Amino acid sequence: MEIIKPRTLSGFMELLPGKQAQFERMLTILRSTYASYGFAALDTPVIEDARILLAKGGGETEKQIYRFQKGDSDLALRFDLTVPLAKYVALHANELAFPFRRYQISKVYRGERAQRGRFREFYQADIDIIGDGKLDILNEAEIPAIIYKVFRGFGLNRFQIRVNNRKILNGFYAMLDLSEKSGDIMRTVDKLDKIGADKVRTILCDDCGLTAEQADEILKFISIRGSNAQVIAALESYTGRNELFDLGVEELKAVTANLSAFGVPEENFAVDLTIARGLDYYTGTVYETTLLDHPEIGSVCSGGRYDNLAGYYIEKQLPGVGISIGLTRLFYVLDEQGLLNPQLPTAPADALVLPMTENAGPAIALAEGLRQKGLRVQLYGEQKKFKQKMAYADKLGVPFAVLLGEDEIAENVCSVKNMRTGEQQKLTADDAAAYILAALAAEGGPIILEK
Amino acid sequence: MEIIKPRTLSGFMELLPGKQAQFERMLTILRSTYASYGFAALDTPVIEDARILLAKGGGETEKQIYRFQKGDSDLALRFDLTVPLAKYVALHANELAFPFRRYQISKVYRGERAQRGRFREFYQADIDIIGDGKLDILNEAEIPAIIYKVFRGFGLNRFQIRVNNRKILNGFYAMLDLSEKSGDIMRTVDKLDKIGADKVRTILCDDCGLTAEQADEILKFISIRGSNAQVIAALESYTGRNELFDLGVEELKAVTANLSAFGVPEENFAVDLTIARGLDYYTGTVYETTLLDHPEIGSVCSGGRYDNLAGYYIEKQLPGVGISIGLTRLFYVLDEQGLLNPQLPTAPADALVLPMTENAGPAIALAEGLRQKGLRVQLYGEQKKFKQKMAYADKLGVPFAVLLGEDEIAENVCSVKNMRTGEQQKLTADDAAAYILAALAAEGGPIILEK
Repeated sequence: MEIIKPRTLSGFMELLPGKQAQFERMLTILRSTYASYGFAALDTPVIEDARILLAKGGGETEKQIYRFQKGDSDLALRFDLTVPLAKYVALHANELAFPFRRYQISKVYRGERAQRGRFREFYQADIDIIGDGKLDILNEAEIPAIIYKVFRGFGLNRFQIRVNNRKILNGFYAMLDLSEKSGDIMRTVDKLDKIGADKVRTILCDDCGLTAEQADEILKFISIRGSNAQVIAALESYTGRNELFDLGVEELKAVTANLSAFGVPEENFAVDLTIARGLDYYTGTVYETTLLDHPEIGSVCSGGRYDNLAGYYIEKQLPGVGISIGLTRLFYVLDEQGLLNPQLPTAPADALVLPMTENAGPAIALAEGLRQKGLRVQLYGEQKKFKQKMAYADKLGVPFAVLLGEDEIAENVCSVKNMRTGEQQKLTADDAAAYILAALAAEGGPIILEK
Repeated sequence: MEIIKPRTLSGFMELLPGKQAQFERMLTILRSTYASYGFAALDTPVIEDARILLAKGGGETEKQIYRFQKGDSDLALRFDLTVPLAKYVALHANELAFPFRRYQISKVYRGERAQRGRFREFYQADIDIIGDGKLDILNEAEIPAIIYKVFRGFGLNRFQIRVNNRKILNGFYAMLDLSEKSGDIMRTVDKLDKIGADKVRTILCDDCGLTAEQADEILKFISIRGSNAQVIAALESYTGRNELFDLGVEELKAVTANLSAFGVPEENFAVDLTIARGLDYYTGTVYETTLLDHPEIGSVCSGGRYDNLAGYYIEKQLPGVGISIGLTRLFYVLDEQGLLNPQLPTAPADALVLPMTENAGPAIALAEGLRQKGLRVQLYGEQKKFKQKMAYADKLGVPFAVLLGEDEIAENVCSVKNMRTGEQQKLTADDAAAYILAALAAEGGPIILEK
């Protein structure tokens, strides 16, 4: 038979079992945290009608999308979870209760140029709250509060959710009579960290056509720093000149106040006037999230408030607020940085039951008994020498081996071997389960271990 | 803005939130049961190199596959989880511990003609155990024992795992000097239930070229019925004439004996000599699973033993045994038949907290407190009239509404309303959590309710 060399496509993450176990832990935390805030799980197709997926059209999306024909159908793979959500809500608007809260943790597809740390297939972990016509500002604080819970659930402490409000930015540019140039200005200002204030000023004047005064006003504004209270106080000195701006400040005050009520400590969120998040989609609060010790990664979780989720598919006005974690990239970076807690067991089983007799019956019963106590148990049925059996247990990384020979069966016990310490003891099945469960509980810890 | 009519492609299952909650329950049972037997979670890409996916090539697969170009790449969507597993094991053979046990619950893609109950995107829930060179027969009993646990976990009792062994069939045809015709014969015999014994005999003689004696021998053989012990006794009357047959009988005896040891009751598994499962892949034990009250559905879970998982990708001999549940179709059928337990709550939250004061702070704190006790809690922040708030709670199907007004805050309590009975009572936050948890626990039950 001709052998075809196996490979996994570049840009597609495929993990070994131990790493996958770590990734699964993050999925579990995400699912349970999102569910605890009353979000419904949703599962939309990977393939959609290309015309629907590209209703908005244009730009990078169209180039990156996986699009193909099947029979007469023009099909495409979803490139995010927001467009399929818009389609879903438009399609089922009459059957849903609004506000409609959903989470979806699924793969999306973008045929980007392959490079280190860039993925063509990657998980997004999204939550959105969709209103019918209206949606209270409270939701704009709840969304980042949930992200705070997720990241703390992962074991992260050194992260910051940065919050801004598009109404403030748009209102501010309106004050300066620069509404029409606000897109260009925001794109320029977005480069502040990279190119510095002087270069930003040059571009604003030379390329965007601003006066030196306007450029200075903008640079002064976006350099407002300090505690959240200080930034808000500085913003209030601008109020009374533009309604939209004033509304934005009110919203930002409500969001920061409620974030505190949700129990998010001040060190984990910050008002940051440089955050803009794209140009036409978001209309109110916007979020970015950075790992404080790894600013080079950029935002690992972003989102914001929008006024019209599904305008391409339905006349109904559906405002919403949502946020998305780029989970595959986050996991990749955490792993690269060595931040995944190596102490957490990644073996597929808590215990490996090794029958040492011809008849496997007693070992089968023992394994079933241990499972009923809540353990993950693998029964090893291969006819191998003892040494090979232990070598397998070692390679698997299983924390406990449970041996059952003639002697143990006669005494109604089993021999439990701690694979790390080498310690071995004879215990009844019930005692063995209790002993292993206690040892595993003592080994618990966060998924991420910050240095 | 031009409106594009939203739609979901036909052959793609997209569930409303309540139905999705039922589906998620099945996923949870599958994951926890598979994990409890020491299977590692695996997650392979949806897109693979088409040449690798189609290494085996030919037939229906090639016609149904979603295949497309992206740049210079010839890509395809996986049509099952076995071929990606073969690629994965071949690619990582040096890093895996054998036997390698993995589960994968993922979507696969087949561009079949769309018809009722047929899906182009559907979940498979697979387990496989892969050996390096050898694999003990014990695994061939463990696999159906796990499926038994899964189905019981769903709440099903009226199902039967039907077991046969390809060595018995191949050995039997060899006894009759019909090895070369065994493919045609098995395809014909497979129609027994549909067309009856007389027609099968006619086809065997006229189309397959068997003598009347040979056809009668075959019909006599596949009509062996009775308890597992009776069928095995009947099989033993054929032993001593063909080595392969004898080995198959020994294996079948071992599998049935071990299935009992695994705690699978006799009524849930049956030796059935008519099961063949395709032609060239399986080499030993084969399985099909039927719902006893819905034989028209056919097999909802099938698999078997194979000798060479990854021969297209690696020289290494990798025998294995695996089984697959066609989850999307199973769910569709259970739903159609009205077998999904309507008593289980499908709301995204256990409690809806309704702030009745201007300041949402106390309600936020209450909701957080209830979550810490393990409840799924939605905070309702919209400025609506009381009646509208209750109408929302009703539409959402949430079992409890928790009201927090000035009075409650002053008394340090909240008002808990049972949405089903209408009963309302004032409780402290801790008592409210305990009360709701107890009520939810009392409402538990199986996912599937057999009639």
